[in-house]
Amino acid sequence: MREMFDLQKLVRPGLDKLVPYDAHLYTGVIKLDANENPYPFPAEAAQKIGALAAGDVLSRYPDAGATELRQAIAKYTGVQPEQVMVGNGSDELILNILLTFGTGGRVLITNPTFSMYKIHSLVAGARPIPVPRRSDFSLDVPAVINYARQSESRVIFICSPNNPTGNGSTLEEIEAVLSQVNCLVVVDQAYLEFGGADCRPLLDKYPQLIILRTFSKAFSLAGLRVGYMLANADVLRQIQKVKQPYNLNSFSQAAALAVLTNREPFLKQIQDIITERKALQEGLQSIPGVTTYPSVTNFIMFRTNYDSKLIYQQLLDRKILIRKLGGPELPGCLRVTVGTAEENKLFLQALGQVMDELGRFVTATLFPTNLNKT
Amino acid sequence: MREMFDLQKLVRPGLDKLVPYDAHLYTGVIKLDANENPYPFPAEAAQKIGALAAGDVLSRYPDAGATELRQAIAKYTGVQPEQVMVGNGSDELILNILLTFGTGGRVLITNPTFSMYKIHSLVAGARPIPVPRRSDFSLDVPAVINYARQSESRVIFICSPNNPTGNGSTLEEIEAVLSQVNCLVVVDQAYLEFGGADCRPLLDKYPQLIILRTFSKAFSLAGLRVGYMLANADVLRQIQKVKQPYNLNSFSQAAALAVLTNREPFLKQIQDIITERKALQEGLQSIPGVTTYPSVTNFIMFRTNYDSKLIYQQLLDRKILIRKLGGPELPGCLRVTVGTAEENKLFLQALGQVMDELGRFVTATLFPTNLNKT
Repeated sequence: MREMFDLQKLVRPGLDKLVPYDAHLYTGVIKLDANENPYPFPAEAAQKIGALAAGDVLSRYPDAGATELRQAIAKYTGVQPEQVMVGNGSDELILNILLTFGTGGRVLITNPTFSMYKIHSLVAGARPIPVPRRSDFSLDVPAVINYARQSESRVIFICSPNNPTGNGSTLEEIEAVLSQVNCLVVVDQAYLEFGGADCRPLLDKYPQLIILRTFSKAFSLAGLRVGYMLANADVLRQIQKVKQPYNLNSFSQAAALAVLTNREPFLKQIQDIITERKALQEGLQSIPGVTTYPSVTNFIMFRTNYDSKLIYQQLLDRKILIRKLGGPELPGCLRVTVGTAEENKLFLQALGQVMDELGRFVTATLFPTNLNKT
Repeated sequence: MREMFDLQKLVRPGLDKLVPYDAHLYTGVIKLDANENPYPFPAEAAQKIGALAAGDVLSRYPDAGATELRQAIAKYTGVQPEQVMVGNGSDELILNILLTFGTGGRVLITNPTFSMYKIHSLVAGARPIPVPRRSDFSLDVPAVINYARQSESRVIFICSPNNPTGNGSTLEEIEAVLSQVNCLVVVDQAYLEFGGADCRPLLDKYPQLIILRTFSKAFSLAGLRVGYMLANADVLRQIQKVKQPYNLNSFSQAAALAVLTNREPFLKQIQDIITERKALQEGLQSIPGVTTYPSVTNFIMFRTNYDSKLIYQQLLDRKILIRKLGGPELPGCLRVTVGTAEENKLFLQALGQVMDELGRFVTATLFPTNLNKT
């Protein structure tokens, strides 16, 4: 008799550390949780993009080489097309990097940072090793170098500007790492358009540097999933071995190209977001009990003395969705995307109310006799 | 002194078996190489889809759960939404299946068949094991069962109808495998709309069955990369651990939904393709030196006594692009997609010319004295 089908026995060892992503869809809320561009899509670009959704763009397989888009990105970033690879969001590129270089080895992750580096390391069968940042969330360069020199270290992830803390690393810090390690160094610059040092100049000098960038943030294409990486052509040739030939669909290729060639209105929106960021930062600081962290991105991390889940839920009850962080690395922390002026105002009002009510509740709980005095 | 950066030392062992996909883009040719739907995209559906490319579909992250599309697919295929997962083309789903179950184990591939099963097995760190089909390309059921019973066998891929041979497996054959093995059985039914047995009824009986389907062929969305799989909800929950949260972009989700809810014109096109397939089959058989294989798909495999590269190149010189096969498993074989009536006519004319000229050349080479007789 054959054995029965036993699903658990067939699942690859190591996947038990992963939980399926819980897709929760919120509607009718002010969405400040995902660092999207909050402004209406620029009308002229939207019109051009709408017209692209027809004919061969729909019914024929995409250009596997994404020739035109890669040429435009090369021009935009000042590299050669051979130094550009595009992906179905940066997520796919992170997985591809790890499948090419990480599997079976150590992947250094400068925590606290973007969660997908660890998740994709586990998916690719690599060992994610946390390398803690300093207390101000700056890169601990000597620690990174020390960890990287241990055998089987293959890839280092540095998110700069860093999600979710909001700070950027300096070029000197990045170069200090690059010049003293021989593994691959991935600098994720998804938020670069909003601030921080551009690592592009280091590409010419360091063959192990990979820069990740995206159309999802400043360029308003989160829905279409277009990420790209800049790297040494030899490095990309290796990654091409694991890349799915038709990984980026035709419409996303064409839309990203249209955005790049019509980017003035987006540059204006980026300036508006930077202006709003300052106002949001000041608004947060004016709420008693709220501590903020400096940001060169389109979001701000802040902290209260309450459990971040509590603040998150109280805001959600008021129809405002932000991101809860927390855990041992970021106790009491939350992340809010810079929205439109109106969205930020509503968020600040709601957070002010929540903090005020929680303060009264705590006072009433700790000093209940006070209530009887009046 | 630190060691120098050495790219080759960092590449994961095993990837040397893979070569980067060579993206060659042909323009100005009749494209009968990729099994795409050759007809114009139905006008009403195209209009609805064009209108979708705006606002939040562009600038906000996709619904990670693809809720609406999965519901529509569930209704279309007669399963529950929990039994549906969508992907960035079936390619991504194949990789996800292999990353969940294949890594470190044996993956049985019923050759000759679609090349991505082997490639993604190597990418996922699994061992692809070829299980040859019979000489008529039907499934060798006892061989598949024997191979599957060897330890570490995790996944079996059965493409039905099979690419590139064109034949389908019967439900009895598929069920014979399912009832006698305990590994996962993936039946890739990308071409099901054109013919062959639908494995959907077997899903209720066999928890290890995974069915792959796609919008790329019959439903004209090759450019948008929308594949899906139907399986036991427990199986999909495991695969969700490795799935990228935002794997299918918003526009492709919305477009696939629009196609499913406006599918009548596509069903008409499918009938036309089936009619044209018969004409193309007869046309091929009427060319001396051409042998064809039966097909229940939107393509036909055929064979000549010449090297398939030669036929391929001669056709390309005449601006007609088809797929060359060849190798020890399919010597002299090529695959041509069923095009429009006009495209098929031009292809048949060109192939007739090529075969005729090659015949004269061979005669002249083998019997050169004949030339002097006239």
